[in-house]
Amino acid sequence: MESHVHIRSWQMVQPGAPIQLAEHDFSTSALEAGEVLVEVAGCGVCHTDLGFYYGGVRTGRALPLTLGHEISGVVVAAGTGEQALVGRSVIVPAVIPCGACDLCWAGRGSICRKQIFPGSDVHGGFASHVVVPGRGLCPVDDKALQASGLSLAELSVIADAVSTPYQAVLRSGLVRGDVAVFIGAGGVGGFGVQIAAALGAHVIAIDIDEARLASIADHGAAWTLCSKDKDPQVIRKAVAEHVKAQGWSPYTWKIFETSGHPRGQETAFGLLTFGAHLSVVGYTLEKVTVRLSNLMAFDATAQGNWGCLPAHYPRALALVLEGKVKLGPFIEKRPMSQINETFADLHEGKTRRRPVLLPAA
Amino acid sequence: MESHVHIRSWQMVQPGAPIQLAEHDFSTSALEAGEVLVEVAGCGVCHTDLGFYYGGVRTGRALPLTLGHEISGVVVAAGTGEQALVGRSVIVPAVIPCGACDLCWAGRGSICRKQIFPGSDVHGGFASHVVVPGRGLCPVDDKALQASGLSLAELSVIADAVSTPYQAVLRSGLVRGDVAVFIGAGGVGGFGVQIAAALGAHVIAIDIDEARLASIADHGAAWTLCSKDKDPQVIRKAVAEHVKAQGWSPYTWKIFETSGHPRGQETAFGLLTFGAHLSVVGYTLEKVTVRLSNLMAFDATAQGNWGCLPAHYPRALALVLEGKVKLGPFIEKRPMSQINETFADLHEGKTRRRPVLLPAA
Repeated sequence: MESHVHIRSWQMVQPGAPIQLAEHDFSTSALEAGEVLVEVAGCGVCHTDLGFYYGGVRTGRALPLTLGHEISGVVVAAGTGEQALVGRSVIVPAVIPCGACDLCWAGRGSICRKQIFPGSDVHGGFASHVVVPGRGLCPVDDKALQASGLSLAELSVIADAVSTPYQAVLRSGLVRGDVAVFIGAGGVGGFGVQIAAALGAHVIAIDIDEARLASIADHGAAWTLCSKDKDPQVIRKAVAEHVKAQGWSPYTWKIFETSGHPRGQETAFGLLTFGAHLSVVGYTLEKVTVRLSNLMAFDATAQGNWGCLPAHYPRALALVLEGKVKLGPFIEKRPMSQINETFADLHEGKTRRRPVLLPAA
Repeated sequence: MESHVHIRSWQMVQPGAPIQLAEHDFSTSALEAGEVLVEVAGCGVCHTDLGFYYGGVRTGRALPLTLGHEISGVVVAAGTGEQALVGRSVIVPAVIPCGACDLCWAGRGSICRKQIFPGSDVHGGFASHVVVPGRGLCPVDDKALQASGLSLAELSVIADAVSTPYQAVLRSGLVRGDVAVFIGAGGVGGFGVQIAAALGAHVIAIDIDEARLASIADHGAAWTLCSKDKDPQVIRKAVAEHVKAQGWSPYTWKIFETSGHPRGQETAFGLLTFGAHLSVVGYTLEKVTVRLSNLMAFDATAQGNWGCLPAHYPRALALVLEGKVKLGPFIEKRPMSQINETFADLHEGKTRRRPVLLPAA
């Protein structure tokens, strides 16, 4: 049954220029087979968005483009084959693999070359509505959501800031009692700390920002270390001493680099121990100088992590709904109409919390 | 039943000084529980030995020390609990985990902190006999050995040069039809090429030495590339073009760095593709400059490899006995009494083949 929907979207016209509100009518008959229309509840603002807007990173699709890839909402219309989703509350994965290529069949959806990244390959979530494939959407149980005290909008950050470190933790093979070290306790790292703690790790958080560390010390970090003006060797020594004093294992540390800064990467690489697993979650264009052979000497692994397979979303969501990963202290909701001020605040470091933009506010 | 064995050993007295023949009588009653006495058939010479002798690398045990960790032979006496091994032809693993610590129980024997590396932690194989733990020895079926046309002495190189790349290939997840790229086609890399080819990969061998490439082109390398005076970017382009022309997969390459040179490591890192797995097998003390974030952008993995778990030896041995991995063209047998000349020849690059020293010759 065809219907018309009035769509508002906040579009990036060119890098650095004011993001502009655009409005148009959308006919649901335009939905192709497998597509759905999601009424956006909230969309988180990620440093990847700032990279597109300020940092010269190119979007997959030409401008003007609606950014935003941390999306939650309700499916309000569907194309052929996806009718069962209509009316469901969902989280839209930030990386949506095609599900039908050789790489997807081999379980390597994270590198699917037909994957869709909303807000880069297609219009994203800084809008009242977004058109995405129905495949891979993560349904949210409305009763469980209500019981959790969270709003659907708040769950938007699961689509990247929670799910990406969740996959990194899974891949690291972390088990109860392991030492987990996060370099960077910001958006992604902060949730990573909580996830690793929820899975039973002894978690150490390292950051250059004392306020961020204070916040994460209340939410899963067993120990924090301010790395400002400290050499990687000094940091390694301090961590090793703390681990020893606590009686934790000196081996097989799970190290998560989420800062995306060269200094953070060198610190992370310098923390390698026998059998360590280093997850490279943050991104920087800059090169770093490391003794790559340490991977051999320590029989250690460095693994990059791109997004999170849709298959892992339900468990990441469960950690949030069960209260094991807290969103509240780490996000702040703002009207989507304040997108330009919000980008500027984040860019200038005026907010430590991850903004979630609400189109309905 | 106690017996006395006359043992000859060629000992490193100090780095760079002539290795000296020492002789002593050994009473088998001195074998402790779990130990065996192996009459050495052959012991391969590895660059690790040269590292101890020329390169300033410190041995685990103080000098004088008998080097040599690529050992095959026959068990001629055993302490309590290992009598069943007496009379068996065996390969002695280069890395012998304790088998009883938490790391071993967790399947991480490669990082067991009580592991024994013969020729560093205890006296090694440049001798007529060696005392090692019975656990982890890889028995050789004498009939299968005879049928293969190989000698027990020749199998010695399985203990590192064959088994180490075998474990690296296993860990890479290589499957039939994958593209495998070896940087370095020397001792370890040459056997690695054969192993990857035996498992069905399209194998590319890269080396700075044309003669080595010519040799490996006859034994498993589908394509070879001389990297002498070529930048990593040029090498990447050439490999990508060849892979494309052949219709092989542009993704999930299995890359093996076996050269142990900084340039080789930068070349290997520069070959990362989506979903690639880079095995760091070679070792150098030098640092390299790389864009570590490429691991994230490509969802790729760099994994170090230390030795090979004893559990994998039987399959590595089977590849050799079945003729899928040829030893003959890549090794040369010499009397152990020529150990000093052999070290010098290898150090000065006068031989491309891996020397196997025979104490009985």
